[in-house]
Amino acid sequence: MVYELYYWPGIQGRGEYVRLALEYAGAKYIDVALVPEEKGGGVPALEKYLEGEDVERPPFAPPFLQAGRQLIGQTANILLFLGGRLDLAPRDAAGRLWTNQLQLTIMDFVAEAHDTHHPIGSGLYYEQQKAAAKKRAKDFVANRLPKFMGYFERVLERNRTGSPGLVGSKLTYADLSLAQVVAGLRYAFPSATRTALRAYPGVLALHEHVLSKPRIKRYLASKRRLGFNNDDLFRHYAELDKAHSR
Amino acid sequence: MVYELYYWPGIQGRGEYVRLALEYAGAKYIDVALVPEEKGGGVPALEKYLEGEDVERPPFAPPFLQAGRQLIGQTANILLFLGGRLDLAPRDAAGRLWTNQLQLTIMDFVAEAHDTHHPIGSGLYYEQQKAAAKKRAKDFVANRLPKFMGYFERVLERNRTGSPGLVGSKLTYADLSLAQVVAGLRYAFPSATRTALRAYPGVLALHEHVLSKPRIKRYLASKRRLGFNNDDLFRHYAELDKAHSR
Repeated sequence: MVYELYYWPGIQGRGEYVRLALEYAGAKYIDVALVPEEKGGGVPALEKYLEGEDVERPPFAPPFLQAGRQLIGQTANILLFLGGRLDLAPRDAAGRLWTNQLQLTIMDFVAEAHDTHHPIGSGLYYEQQKAAAKKRAKDFVANRLPKFMGYFERVLERNRTGSPGLVGSKLTYADLSLAQVVAGLRYAFPSATRTALRAYPGVLALHEHVLSKPRIKRYLASKRRLGFNNDDLFRHYAELDKAHSR
Repeated sequence: MVYELYYWPGIQGRGEYVRLALEYAGAKYIDVALVPEEKGGGVPALEKYLEGEDVERPPFAPPFLQAGRQLIGQTANILLFLGGRLDLAPRDAAGRLWTNQLQLTIMDFVAEAHDTHHPIGSGLYYEQQKAAAKKRAKDFVANRLPKFMGYFERVLERNRTGSPGLVGSKLTYADLSLAQVVAGLRYAFPSATRTALRAYPGVLALHEHVLSKPRIKRYLASKRRLGFNNDDLFRHYAELDKAHSR
C-alpha cells in the first residue's frame, strides 16, 4: 500500500502529524502537493478533492489521506485509521479509544496554539489582529499551556509500563504528535516554553525520546521535513513570547 | 448497561451531543451532575475523575462517560464508542471513520462558535473581551458559518440514499450533533442564522427531521433538556448577531 497524503505545500501544519506517523512506521507515501502539477500533483490535486462535485465523501480541509479507495480527512481520524494499520496504537478497542482521546486533546492544544496569532479570524493577517493576539498569547502561556502540559505530564506519570510514552509499552501516534507540539512550541514561544518545560520533565523526555528514534532522526534531517516558518500553525513573534513576562 | 455521563450542571455544552445520542437510542444513563452530592453525584463526582490521583486514564475535561469499567473522554471519542454500541453509525469500518470525520468537523464548528464570545481566553469574562468578540463574530458569520454550512449541505446532497442524514440511509450521531449545532446557532445568532439557512435547505431539513423524531421530541420537552443560556457554549449577545450586517 502506498498512501497518498494531501496537504498544503510549504508548511508543516496539521499534515505533519500524519507525516510523522508514516515516517516513524516506515510506510510508503506520496506527498501529493510536492508532485509536479503536470504529473497530477500540486495544489490542483488537493483542490480536486476539496471542490470536485463528484467526491462522494469530501474532506472539509487538508490534511486528507488516500488509502486505496478510501479518502480520509481530519487529522485525528487519519491517525485513528493509520494507528491500526501501522501498529501505532494498542490492538484492543479500549486502548485505541484512549489513544484517540489523547490525540483529540493534542489537536485542541494545537488549535489553541494557532489561535494565539489568529484570535479574530484565520482569513485575516496577523498584523490585523496583533492587539488581540498579544492578549490571547498571554492567556495561552499563563493558563492554557500549563493546563495542557500538566495534563500530559500526569498521563505520562500514570503509564505504569515504564515506557516514556503516553499509552502502554510502545510508542503511539499520540506520542509522535505530542513531541511535534513541543517542537512547535519551542519555535513559537522559546522563552515561555523553556520555562514551562522545567515543570514537565516527562513531556520533555518524551519529546527527546521521539526525536532520538532513528527513522524520525533521518526524517528530520531530510529535505522532506520543512522548517518551521511564520506562515505555519506555530509562529514565532517575539512580542507574543514575551507576553508571559508581566 | 447503564451509562454514566459526567458533565457540568446548568449548561448543555458539549455534554449535549452525548445526551442526544443516548436519548435518541433510548439508552439508560445517569447524568451524574444531577445526582445529589450526598449520593455520590454533583460536581465533586466530576472532580474526582478530573483531579483524582488514582485515575489511570484521566479525562482532560468533561464530558466523559463511564461505561462499565471504561472511562471515555472527548466528545467525538465518546460518540465513536457509542455509535457502535447504540447503532448510531454504519457497521463498516469506512462508514464509521466517515461518521467520525464529520463529527470532528462539527466539533470544530462548535469550537469556533464558542470562540465568537471568547476570542481571548475561556477563563475571562465576555465583558473583558467584547471588542475582540465583535470582530471575531463578524468574521464567523461572514466567513466561517457559511463555509461549514456549505460543507454539510454538500455532504447531504451527495448522500445518494435519499435519507435526510449525512451518512447512508440511517440517522447517525453526526446528524443529531449537526441538528443541535443549528439549534445553538439559532439561539446565538438568530438573525444571521435565519439568513444563512435559506442557502442551506438540506441542513435546515435535517435539523427539523431530527427534532421531529419521537424520542428527541420527548427529550426536548422534558426537564432533562436544559434551556440555552448565556453561561453556555452558544450565547446570545445581540451585538454579536448584528455584527454581520455592515
